[in-house]
Amino acid sequence: MEPTQVKSDKKKVVAVVGGGLVGALNACFFAKRGFEVQVYESREDIRTAKVVKGRSINLALSHRGPDGAEARGDGGEVACLFVQIVSQGIPMHARMIHSPDGKQSPIPYGKKGQFILSVDRANLNKQLLSGEKYIADGAKEHISVDLIVGCDGAFSAIRKQFLRRSRFNYSQTYIPHGYMELTMPPRDGDFAMKPHYLHIWPRNTFMMIALPNLDKTFTCTLFMPFEEFEKITTGDEVLEFFQKYFADAIPLIGADSLKRDYFRLPAQAMVSVKCSPYHIADKCVLMGDAAHAVVPFYGQGMNAGFEDCVVFDEIMDQFNEDLGVVLEEYTRVRVPDDHAIADLAMYNYIEMRAHVNSKWFLFRKVTFTRTRYHQAVKRWQWQDKVINRGLLVCGTGAVLGGSYLLFKNPPNMDKVNLDVEKMWNRLVSLGTS
Amino acid sequence: MEPTQVKSDKKKVVAVVGGGLVGALNACFFAKRGFEVQVYESREDIRTAKVVKGRSINLALSHRGPDGAEARGDGGEVACLFVQIVSQGIPMHARMIHSPDGKQSPIPYGKKGQFILSVDRANLNKQLLSGEKYIADGAKEHISVDLIVGCDGAFSAIRKQFLRRSRFNYSQTYIPHGYMELTMPPRDGDFAMKPHYLHIWPRNTFMMIALPNLDKTFTCTLFMPFEEFEKITTGDEVLEFFQKYFADAIPLIGADSLKRDYFRLPAQAMVSVKCSPYHIADKCVLMGDAAHAVVPFYGQGMNAGFEDCVVFDEIMDQFNEDLGVVLEEYTRVRVPDDHAIADLAMYNYIEMRAHVNSKWFLFRKVTFTRTRYHQAVKRWQWQDKVINRGLLVCGTGAVLGGSYLLFKNPPNMDKVNLDVEKMWNRLVSLGTS
Repeated sequence: MEPTQVKSDKKKVVAVVGGGLVGALNACFFAKRGFEVQVYESREDIRTAKVVKGRSINLALSHRGPDGAEARGDGGEVACLFVQIVSQGIPMHARMIHSPDGKQSPIPYGKKGQFILSVDRANLNKQLLSGEKYIADGAKEHISVDLIVGCDGAFSAIRKQFLRRSRFNYSQTYIPHGYMELTMPPRDGDFAMKPHYLHIWPRNTFMMIALPNLDKTFTCTLFMPFEEFEKITTGDEVLEFFQKYFADAIPLIGADSLKRDYFRLPAQAMVSVKCSPYHIADKCVLMGDAAHAVVPFYGQGMNAGFEDCVVFDEIMDQFNEDLGVVLEEYTRVRVPDDHAIADLAMYNYIEMRAHVNSKWFLFRKVTFTRTRYHQAVKRWQWQDKVINRGLLVCGTGAVLGGSYLLFKNPPNMDKVNLDVEKMWNRLVSLGTS
Repeated sequence: MEPTQVKSDKKKVVAVVGGGLVGALNACFFAKRGFEVQVYESREDIRTAKVVKGRSINLALSHRGPDGAEARGDGGEVACLFVQIVSQGIPMHARMIHSPDGKQSPIPYGKKGQFILSVDRANLNKQLLSGEKYIADGAKEHISVDLIVGCDGAFSAIRKQFLRRSRFNYSQTYIPHGYMELTMPPRDGDFAMKPHYLHIWPRNTFMMIALPNLDKTFTCTLFMPFEEFEKITTGDEVLEFFQKYFADAIPLIGADSLKRDYFRLPAQAMVSVKCSPYHIADKCVLMGDAAHAVVPFYGQGMNAGFEDCVVFDEIMDQFNEDLGVVLEEYTRVRVPDDHAIADLAMYNYIEMRAHVNSKWFLFRKVTFTRTRYHQAVKRWQWQDKVINRGLLVCGTGAVLGGSYLLFKNPPNMDKVNLDVEKMWNRLVSLGTS
């Protein structure tokens, strides 16, 4: 059959929609396979933009120890980039809890050698895109491609097309909390607080965290119910609020900056999105936040997006780039894991709201380690006792495709960490191949 | 303040979007309040259309005994219509179970005097719309109104506007089953089967039901997983399938009709939709399937939609038609009840799939009565033992606004039935006032 012959000779074209972290990593993977890659991004090119607009939450990239880093090579551009980025991250070996009276108490992450990395999102993005040749702007044009990869984030335009089709399961859940970012400048040319910590001010129904940046600033993020944000309407009220709850942060951020920056942007919403399937025939596939936006309380959001790319790449190998089979398999394999991560993030959020500070951090400590399934079950049971209403046994991801459940049996509790390790090894192996 | 004066003198205008059951009832309620009512419907006027396209599942309207009917009056057009419709419904006092060998066994609905009504949807719709003066077609035009009421069904265009806004919680879940309608004609001028029964052919993972119509036909509805529908591709395969599972229905439907009608339309999808809030400021509100499409396995879908109208009308009285307050209160009151009904319907669907026939019907019998909360809990626990995977304690409608949960604490188990009674009384009182 001649047409097939012709087609297989031609370079396949993939349109990656979204030039964020997941889009950029995908672009690298597809380029490595010999696809012609086109990256579409509606925002300004992050590599040339002076100020990065939109969301810029600092990311805590977790990985399980520096084993992989030793295998660092210079063969593959993807892994190279990744290793380079990780080496530029600021390791945080512990959390630093700030109590209302200003006292600081470190809580390590568990075993020796475990840490999370504070990586600037904009910087990471720039790095990943540096391997890419194609950046188109958001202008309307007709394109003809073999595959569309939707990596366009929590409010994905590609996913909207899925929503127009029948039998697409979908849920979006906004939480009552919003977030606001504030910058803590350097002090005498150095970090204003100890840099190798994730600083946390837990205050029951709200909290502030601070992550270190390479420029010696901290990005402080205040998480609070929208109704509380809205109660504060003047600069003096901002100061009063901080005086009561985050007094030690006022001189470090600066009273004047605080009064001004609080009103710079309104608090931003956080949404948890689940859907299924992730693909349409052999034509289109969703990855990253476009497929599964999670609330940022489990620290796996970005990892999950990266994992999407890695898993997809593995399936491409497994099924010899036969897109019809590959996309279906990707949905089959990936939906349960991504839904589990979304659930765990929401679970942590509920825990955080429902419990006193210390318990939440105890809990987070547990989840950071390789929690086994039976421990996970114990945790649900514990929740059963604590959250006083609205609790009932519920069920069956199998029946509903999982998209309806808040919590489902998470056989993935192990997998969450294992896959990060696997991803890491995979990236490094690409680098040395 | 003159402008206010002017406004309050002017007749308020409400645009009811959707001329289905809920839209028509709403139109009656608003007209009764002295609003100028405009009903918008994109489909052909059901009162003049010869064939009603789209979904036409027969509806089983449940109500708790004929007490209300005695109070039938001629004062209010709304209740009058309602009473008239109910009096034209065909009461079904029991289910009639058809076993594979053709044996029929009746199972009453419980206490004496309890029954459900088989009401033809198209007929009910015509009746309700007969009170209305305004029907516009789907042509584009700019309208200026005081309130938009979205009653435009499970795939609501009004709800799509809600989806474009931030902090709107939404979920749509398609079930693996589809449905297909087949008509069983009269036999020698009379019903082909006993008319005062809901006929059911339970076959584990699929089932057929049949409801009587006034023209002495039965509407048979086959519920089956899509993948099973798709396996049958020829007329002979249809007959073979019916021979195996619904042999007694073949001569009643007619072998030739069966072979033809099976392929007339593809099997239709069923979706469960939950969202929150139901309103935008004082301008727009969702009711009926637009707010909460449910899978048709609990028999409360239409009742829930009617209840929306009744509850809204009560709140209008309570807050003196102050739309800003009314709409907010409607969301607050109505979301938990509607979510509970969606959950219960999905629960019944899961039960139906998971259990052998007899257990499901036993279960349905329980839910038809005024099941108390502690019994509901027992039921969840029972489910815990039966459904083998994917089961975990989950939680808290309070935290998530409920839109994420499959099952939540249903304090509404009582309310479901009580509200039907309340609604009934309310409608009758309108009729006699």
